Amino acid sequence: MAQQKQFTLEDLNFGGRHYYEMTPERRHYQWWGKQLLRLEVDKVSVIDRKNTETVLFTLDDLEAAMPKDEGIVGINLLNSTFPYGEMSCALIKTPKDRVLFDFKSRKIAWRQKHSGSLEWNKESRSDAFSKDDNLWIRLSDGTECQLTEDGSREIVYGRSVHRNEFGIEKGTFWSPDGTKLAFYRMDQTMVADYPQVNTFGRIATHEPDKYPMAGMTSHEVTVGIYDSKTKKTVFLNVGDPKDRYFTNIQWAPDGKSIYLFELNRDQNKATLDCYDAVTGEKKNTLYTETDEKYVEPLHPISFLPWDSDKFLMFSQREGYMRLYLYDTKGKMIRKVTDDTAKGIANKEYIVRDILGFNKKEKSVIVRANVSQYTSMNIVSFSVDGNEANILDGGYGVCDGQLCEDGSYIINQFSNPNVPRAYQLLGTGMKKAERRDLFVAKEPWEGYAIPHISVGNITAADGKTNLKYREVLPPDFDESKQYPTVLYVYGGPHAHLIEDSRNLAARSWEIYMAQKGYIVYVLDSRGSENRGKEFEQVTFRQLGQEEMKDQMKFVEYFSALPYVDKNRIGVHGWSYGGFMTISLMLNNPDIFKVGVAGGPVTDWKYYEVMYGERYMDTPEQNPEGYAKTSVIDKAKNLKGRLQIIIGANDPVVVPQHAMLFINACNEVGTQPDFYIYPGEEHNMQGHMSVHLHERITRYFDDFLK
Amino acid sequence: MAQQKQFTLEDLNFGGRHYYEMTPERRHYQWWGKQLLRLEVDKVSVIDRKNTETVLFTLDDLEAAMPKDEGIVGINLLNSTFPYGEMSCALIKTPKDRVLFDFKSRKIAWRQKHSGSLEWNKESRSDAFSKDDNLWIRLSDGTECQLTEDGSREIVYGRSVHRNEFGIEKGTFWSPDGTKLAFYRMDQTMVADYPQVNTFGRIATHEPDKYPMAGMTSHEVTVGIYDSKTKKTVFLNVGDPKDRYFTNIQWAPDGKSIYLFELNRDQNKATLDCYDAVTGEKKNTLYTETDEKYVEPLHPISFLPWDSDKFLMFSQREGYMRLYLYDTKGKMIRKVTDDTAKGIANKEYIVRDILGFNKKEKSVIVRANVSQYTSMNIVSFSVDGNEANILDGGYGVCDGQLCEDGSYIINQFSNPNVPRAYQLLGTGMKKAERRDLFVAKEPWEGYAIPHISVGNITAADGKTNLKYREVLPPDFDESKQYPTVLYVYGGPHAHLIEDSRNLAARSWEIYMAQKGYIVYVLDSRGSENRGKEFEQVTFRQLGQEEMKDQMKFVEYFSALPYVDKNRIGVHGWSYGGFMTISLMLNNPDIFKVGVAGGPVTDWKYYEVMYGERYMDTPEQNPEGYAKTSVIDKAKNLKGRLQIIIGANDPVVVPQHAMLFINACNEVGTQPDFYIYPGEEHNMQGHMSVHLHERITRYFDDFLK
Repeated sequence: MAQQKQFTLEDLNFGGRHYYEMTPERRHYQWWGKQLLRLEVDKVSVIDRKNTETVLFTLDDLEAAMPKDEGIVGINLLNSTFPYGEMSCALIKTPKDRVLFDFKSRKIAWRQKHSGSLEWNKESRSDAFSKDDNLWIRLSDGTECQLTEDGSREIVYGRSVHRNEFGIEKGTFWSPDGTKLAFYRMDQTMVADYPQVNTFGRIATHEPDKYPMAGMTSHEVTVGIYDSKTKKTVFLNVGDPKDRYFTNIQWAPDGKSIYLFELNRDQNKATLDCYDAVTGEKKNTLYTETDEKYVEPLHPISFLPWDSDKFLMFSQREGYMRLYLYDTKGKMIRKVTDDTAKGIANKEYIVRDILGFNKKEKSVIVRANVSQYTSMNIVSFSVDGNEANILDGGYGVCDGQLCEDGSYIINQFSNPNVPRAYQLLGTGMKKAERRDLFVAKEPWEGYAIPHISVGNITAADGKTNLKYREVLPPDFDESKQYPTVLYVYGGPHAHLIEDSRNLAARSWEIYMAQKGYIVYVLDSRGSENRGKEFEQVTFRQLGQEEMKDQMKFVEYFSALPYVDKNRIGVHGWSYGGFMTISLMLNNPDIFKVGVAGGPVTDWKYYEVMYGERYMDTPEQNPEGYAKTSVIDKAKNLKGRLQIIIGANDPVVVPQHAMLFINACNEVGTQPDFYIYPGEEHNMQGHMSVHLHERITRYFDDFLK
Repeated sequence: MAQQKQFTLEDLNFGGRHYYEMTPERRHYQWWGKQLLRLEVDKVSVIDRKNTETVLFTLDDLEAAMPKDEGIVGINLLNSTFPYGEMSCALIKTPKDRVLFDFKSRKIAWRQKHSGSLEWNKESRSDAFSKDDNLWIRLSDGTECQLTEDGSREIVYGRSVHRNEFGIEKGTFWSPDGTKLAFYRMDQTMVADYPQVNTFGRIATHEPDKYPMAGMTSHEVTVGIYDSKTKKTVFLNVGDPKDRYFTNIQWAPDGKSIYLFELNRDQNKATLDCYDAVTGEKKNTLYTETDEKYVEPLHPISFLPWDSDKFLMFSQREGYMRLYLYDTKGKMIRKVTDDTAKGIANKEYIVRDILGFNKKEKSVIVRANVSQYTSMNIVSFSVDGNEANILDGGYGVCDGQLCEDGSYIINQFSNPNVPRAYQLLGTGMKKAERRDLFVAKEPWEGYAIPHISVGNITAADGKTNLKYREVLPPDFDESKQYPTVLYVYGGPHAHLIEDSRNLAARSWEIYMAQKGYIVYVLDSRGSENRGKEFEQVTFRQLGQEEMKDQMKFVEYFSALPYVDKNRIGVHGWSYGGFMTISLMLNNPDIFKVGVAGGPVTDWKYYEVMYGERYMDTPEQNPEGYAKTSVIDKAKNLKGRLQIIIGANDPVVVPQHAMLFINACNEVGTQPDFYIYPGEEHNMQGHMSVHLHERITRYFDDFLK
């Protein structure tokens, strides 16, 4: 029998040289109306009901249609889309242009530049784009119109605002017909700069970055609407925008109104408001939600495709994120995603997102963890009746892409038995139509693979079930005692354990196990997908309840005969870096070694939106800030602790690490420290391999 | 027999809590005309020829004379001076004022504010001071006059210029009678900022620092002269000051002329020029010195007290820094410090500085290493004749303070047998008058003291003698093999081995030896006190010849039976940090562990004055810069290397460390790194204890 192969970080880490060969094979599918297509680098094929693939067109066909002096340099058909079900056209990006290629007539049907593109609309074929910090649009015929003139580093147009919190990912919003553009304007003139330094020039340069810290003056956001017909812009009449958040912009189907959520700075009151898109005046407030801790609107409303007076709205007001059907007068009609429907095993499920609608059956297709809380299923809910249909196999983590009328969905999923697979699912409420498109082979055949399993413990509250992951060395011998590392995150909006490939074990866990460590991971209270109460237990005291759960877990695994309780380490990044330092300083005799990456060390140096949601301001919650700060606990450091940051981290700014290290220097404790010049909050590309070699070496130096 | 006591860094390090108790006792002497005084915190005494001390006045006497509401809070008599030999007055600084206390009449004779004081003149009792970046003077009667108006961060008045190179330590120069003030004006508007960051505020702030890097645009310096009688300022008419250095300003004894050295940017041509102090026009150029490598004027000229037409000038044009007698027409009269005088054992001596003149005997009293190059003697040279008299015992490192007429000097010295002693020396040319004032006891009695010795090796050039220091553990056993650390500096204007207490062994060497390491130190070619050729061998290739010598030394000690050649480490700071990295990367199989503090990693990021003197510009010397840079050699890193910097180092800016670390991150080598937030080029106070604990721990972790 051949010796089993050993992994390197070049194999396992996403930045590694062999990473792509070592991950399960991917396929690329797209819908063209109701037709299922398979995209490859050099061709696009139609897949029929028997999984037979017929070539629709090739890169050669495209080349024949392109101007000779241009050819197909830089074109990859994997990126094609098929925006018009009724037209035989592929939308393809060349290095400079957006091109509509008619694969029937084999001709270029239309083209347009895409430089600076922010968002393109398929109806009008207009493109919103950015030039010299100002916002422009490019019409279908190529005409360019300038929308703003005072754009700068301080006055920002058409970009994501509020530091990407509240579900905000972009700053432009086309009306359904693509004739009007809603856009964010963010005034940051009143916000303090964080002085980032670029050390790569002939001489280092100052690159200031507006960074509103918890309790400090924040930016002011407004929303403009440009009408490409009248060439005029109106701003929503919101009054003084100071200390207010405007999020989750949605157009009415007729393009005459705009809906958005407004949140107060305290983040404990949200309203859903409708504004007139022509006058900018507020028409009505449809909905108000308050919470003694916080409200966090994360999703725009979704209008029903068959009834433009009704929409679905997300809310976790009853404890779990669910969908509610409202009309445009603000009247609630019903709760669509109830937990009484047949087949829902996990009554505490949350709806993750809406994938679309089955228009014929009047159902909404969502992702929700209805089978068990560690899975993510694809589920049809009837909008009007109390019915649900779990479309996937019920075990695993799914994501999907609906065809035009919503009758079918491509499900890409994995579970511990299936490294990666693609299925075609029918979305009908009654039938269970499911067809495998592709099942990837396990790419780690022949390698020494660690033993990965999940288990359950009870949280520190004495009642809540928590899932943990255990990763044991491939040659695990239960009569031995192993050095053991707790990998930790712990923050909101994240979970580490799920029913995906390898139970979501991170590549570093595999690597460490192979090197002879045991790795443990726990999703403590405060993490996602478990509902409001579970999440909000951390309010005004980030890290405290999480630590209790993690320590309960450490107690548990320390008592296992194969865990060496004198060699316990801990590692985490970002919130997990904060947790790592917190755990080490609050339990100095437990953890021998820790590595804390990009750590928050005092929440008052974190930004307003995230920081104040969970902690309120330093002025409102001085005890909470003091209790959770690790800076004044620097004297408790006993084990070996390495702190690692990106020198240009704009998220958890270097001030966090600097102040903690200075505190250690002053009280005479000795952390270690490393820095990645030019890197931000997470190491990019191959730097991540270097980082994980570094983290591993630290445990090898001091824990092994 | 009692167990010998062990040192801690709190005992040994200058920032340690017990440092002062653990250093040889100090005494404080001052001259009052020809009278020798001993200063203590609460009293001042006269010492007669028999060493009998008689109290002159006490702090109580001063208190009785001070206004009742003011008292003696914050006054320490150790800081008193006695500027007027003919007056019974002590000059004492209170927290706010300069006070002349007449200790005979027991009255306050005069007082004046000293806020912002830059330089006070005892003749006019005028004070040059700085306020809001501008230069002012405060007359004896308290009147304040503003000299400049456009002072700012960019236009700097009355401060040291040219980054303290060329012997420049201050920016104001009173005429002998204190009626005219010469001052530097430095225009930095054209100089790039280095972006320093202060991480201690509510949010970090940018604190830019003008930093002209080698080859980049430098600042422009001019010299103004303010006449307190006419209230007018004239600037020396030097023409365009771009790329020129003006240094070593000296007034003519009559206050009518100003002498200074001018150096070109290439630093290979210096002239001594005389300017009219009233018109600012150049009167004549007295002297020109060129060198194919560099000229470095470090001392102002010194006029003979008995002949205001003649002065002494320093030059190492003949190979060793010596004094030459010139007249004010620029005619050289003679070389004063020849090496043919009787008693001069080391013919290759250098004159370190002028302590003063014996006016009666017409001799100049200097410090020079005439007995052997590792000592620093006090020597009288007759100005007119070829005579010399070594005033000290001839073995040790001396410093002295002359009485008013120069007939006696207080010599503070130490040598390996004398921890610290104070002597009164007659400066007469013929007699050897020498009287002990105080000999301090050895403060380390009862401690386990390492074995410290010096030895000689031949440099890599095959001919030059070099001295090294060996520090062996207190319980050294030559049959054992020890981990061994090379401590290195190597740069110009420094030496590490001399005939002072413990042969100048640094406290960390003592500490390391006590912990069971052997420490070696070598003064390689390029270091000071050995003459021009010895120093200039490093020209255009800093670190290269030094490395050859250091490696010759490593070869030598590695072959010693008690040195473990598999456990050799290296440590150095600043230039020594540069050397540490250079040694490790150029000899990856020799050094297992290194700690490099505040290291230069590429000379093009160092400043213009020092950088270009030794390296020329990056444009003139691309091969030299490439050869000496460690950044592109990052892939050679094999041993464990920790780099440590002050986060706000304004001398070797953080860019050096950042670029080297980034290079390692890119090629996949793994240095370690630590940072001291808020600290500059050297750790201050107790931070130095933390630093040396850190350095020691690194060797304990990986070399022991």
